[in-house]
Amino acid sequence: MSDKRKITVAYGDGIGPEIMTATLSILEAAGAAIETEVIEIGEQVYLKGISSGIEPSAWDSLRETKVFLKSPITTPQGGGFKSLNVTTRKTLGLYANVRPCKAYSPFIRTHFPETDMVIIRENEEDLYAGIEHRQTEEVYQCLKLISRPGSEKIVRYAFEYARMNNRKRVTCMTKDNIMKMADGIFHQVFNEVAREYPDIQTDHKIIDIGTALIADRPEMFDVIVTLNLYGDIISDVAAQITGSVGLGGSANIGEEVAMFEAIHGSAPDIAGRDIANPSGLINGAIMMLVHIGQPAVAETISNAWMRTLEDGIHTGDIYQEGISKKRVGTQEFAAAVVERLGKAPVTMKKASFPRSTRSEQELKAALAIGPGKTSKKVLIGLDVFIDWKEDDRDPNVLGEALREVDAAGLKMQLITNRGVRVYPGGMKETFCSDHWRVRFFNADESAISHEQLIDVLQQVKQLGFDFIKTENLYTFDGVRGFSLAQGE
Amino acid sequence: MSDKRKITVAYGDGIGPEIMTATLSILEAAGAAIETEVIEIGEQVYLKGISSGIEPSAWDSLRETKVFLKSPITTPQGGGFKSLNVTTRKTLGLYANVRPCKAYSPFIRTHFPETDMVIIRENEEDLYAGIEHRQTEEVYQCLKLISRPGSEKIVRYAFEYARMNNRKRVTCMTKDNIMKMADGIFHQVFNEVAREYPDIQTDHKIIDIGTALIADRPEMFDVIVTLNLYGDIISDVAAQITGSVGLGGSANIGEEVAMFEAIHGSAPDIAGRDIANPSGLINGAIMMLVHIGQPAVAETISNAWMRTLEDGIHTGDIYQEGISKKRVGTQEFAAAVVERLGKAPVTMKKASFPRSTRSEQELKAALAIGPGKTSKKVLIGLDVFIDWKEDDRDPNVLGEALREVDAAGLKMQLITNRGVRVYPGGMKETFCSDHWRVRFFNADESAISHEQLIDVLQQVKQLGFDFIKTENLYTFDGVRGFSLAQGE
Repeated sequence: MSDKRKITVAYGDGIGPEIMTATLSILEAAGAAIETEVIEIGEQVYLKGISSGIEPSAWDSLRETKVFLKSPITTPQGGGFKSLNVTTRKTLGLYANVRPCKAYSPFIRTHFPETDMVIIRENEEDLYAGIEHRQTEEVYQCLKLISRPGSEKIVRYAFEYARMNNRKRVTCMTKDNIMKMADGIFHQVFNEVAREYPDIQTDHKIIDIGTALIADRPEMFDVIVTLNLYGDIISDVAAQITGSVGLGGSANIGEEVAMFEAIHGSAPDIAGRDIANPSGLINGAIMMLVHIGQPAVAETISNAWMRTLEDGIHTGDIYQEGISKKRVGTQEFAAAVVERLGKAPVTMKKASFPRSTRSEQELKAALAIGPGKTSKKVLIGLDVFIDWKEDDRDPNVLGEALREVDAAGLKMQLITNRGVRVYPGGMKETFCSDHWRVRFFNADESAISHEQLIDVLQQVKQLGFDFIKTENLYTFDGVRGFSLAQGE
Repeated sequence: MSDKRKITVAYGDGIGPEIMTATLSILEAAGAAIETEVIEIGEQVYLKGISSGIEPSAWDSLRETKVFLKSPITTPQGGGFKSLNVTTRKTLGLYANVRPCKAYSPFIRTHFPETDMVIIRENEEDLYAGIEHRQTEEVYQCLKLISRPGSEKIVRYAFEYARMNNRKRVTCMTKDNIMKMADGIFHQVFNEVAREYPDIQTDHKIIDIGTALIADRPEMFDVIVTLNLYGDIISDVAAQITGSVGLGGSANIGEEVAMFEAIHGSAPDIAGRDIANPSGLINGAIMMLVHIGQPAVAETISNAWMRTLEDGIHTGDIYQEGISKKRVGTQEFAAAVVERLGKAPVTMKKASFPRSTRSEQELKAALAIGPGKTSKKVLIGLDVFIDWKEDDRDPNVLGEALREVDAAGLKMQLITNRGVRVYPGGMKETFCSDHWRVRFFNADESAISHEQLIDVLQQVKQLGFDFIKTENLYTFDGVRGFSLAQGE
């Protein structure tokens, strides 16, 4: 028993229990040295009133085993229930979502038989931090936050993944032609880290073109690293076009804990009928076996699974007249995989997973982010956002009124609405919402104090305006830490 | 002359002049009742030091003619040059980007011969407002702003477009399972407006799945309406998979002015060689003719253009051995279209554009957004963001220090980092950046004053903390106008 690795397992909802049973039966037959500890998650936990969908005691199991094989769950309809996946990822710091996406043509129908890419998605930041505010009748805001260390962690992971898995190229995708700072830092970190991996080719695609190319020429990609929202979209595109929505597994990797799952949902409509395809969770479990240092078992299972596909033993979702030989249920499919343990695929490439020669410490060292920099940060101004809808929303009225503000020399310079300058010198066609950004800085961009900021707010309030939010303006080593307005 | 509609034309950069010459020759031969006024935009204007890339006097022409047929331009490399398209759209309030996306199989290679969708993209808001701030060493922020009137304008445009063009269904795409407020308001407005159009079917897709379905089953879509960033991505996917990147036209519609163009860029590498395909600008010009009330001329040109494709008269970019008959240059392609004016396509469906029976006033009335609501807005708290990296970033140290703040009873309730609660009751695995959000509200969520907010900032500053931004917390008609923290 002592050489068995303990893992945490959750059977989930819908088809979850069936596919987990099927998957574990294969792991056992293949000789995976694991011992499972079961935790409760999902619908029953939500309905007990636990808004996160996970039993509080389950965290202890995850912290102890550090490995989580998870079936899909069902989040009940109605308010107040939080995404278990988001909670798990963020609470345990699972910063990297890893999604291999491979075509299995002709056994799985696709226009793109050569596809074999891995998408590595940042998992914690971006718009998914869930920081939203409504501060006027009309305008709703969500903060997109991108950090340098968060970017470095995922980019470094992508390069280490590429090197370990004998991949040749890492492609970065951002929208830094528009978001020059938020997406710009991600791209910049990518370029910096890339220099440490001269053996790996690199390139960068703007996400709109990049997504279009994934949809149309997926075979051109190898490893892709990208921000959270973009990764969410392109992962689904890649899975869909290779026909692997029902087959794909995924890993969520943290510094301590890692979670493995199928990419599909709990499919409650077909639950309990023994017809679900367990392949997604099988592929998640294969990734888990590689992660816990059992790559040989992972290869045995992967080869047997591919052979099962080749032999035409297919569940209903992938059954094709002329290619499939036998339509099977969930457990029969698993039994067919078990029967083929030790066999290799005939037409498809045999599985080959990396044998890490590095200790856990060495791996951690390779993934460690560099020491933080320290720039000289200088406060030079303030954006005050105001809720205002009087006087036909004429920006000149607002501008003239706010000209009176003078906080020890700190004065208003311009006003924008939805990012466009409307005072001074606005254009009459510009549509103005009730959400105005008023920018204050010294004409010579010299340093100011927090006391001056507070003074500005006091004067704005005294003039009768409802300030709803503020953003300080800083320079870092003399470089502006803020964008100019459109028209500034 | 008096019945000719004046339009503004820009020849642009790269292949721009060639394709504009080709396009205008077709318009003239087809009898389009237009008179062109030429303005300068693009590279030469940028290099004169005009950072917007458009001559200031050009705005007068656009305001007078209200119709702009634009060739692609080249933005010079290096800093300081702004996107001309973004400036034009936002300055003139071109809120709707309209992109038809159609397959022309077998003449244009595609896996999806049945595709015929129109993507209607919000054009002014979202992350593209370009409001970015860096306020700590590590964290960069971009504001995503979505307004109710901005959403209503684009959604209403989409339904009117569908009805006028005899389209059956409008699909809304958002990510409101994550961005419940910002994307939520867009989806909510969609549902509200949809009720006024019982003749149009509607549905909603989460953007990740939606993009995947556009890539894999584009024939299922009719009209799609979505936010700016998502629209950017799906427009490129749709164009790519139908092979229409070189063929597509696009319209940018405002309340007063409208701009028409090709979806491709200026392709400086093939400029001046008379090999570029003018089809993108031709299709943009066809949309323009429909817009200015000359649908019959638009049909004549569209039919002749399709017939040219069918006859195998192809530029090099779309030349296919076995399907193409003759490889032609830019002007020869245009001449072939002119030769076919009056002819109809044989296998493809003939063009049919709407004859608007409504006056300009009636159209404006149909597109007018409803009267704004007025909710009861109550200030109940404040998020103060702090730049802090002392004491090993232990949230408990920060939390204990800030417990001392008391602004007439207004006190700290919790601290988050990248959206995750870290105090009180954080998890040790949570990675902490130098960017902390500290939430202040009364325990009973009762109303507070702006003076209390200012007092909080003063106390935070006195405790030695660098506050970098604030977000006020409001309720609207008793409903919270802010998201809870993950773990709150």
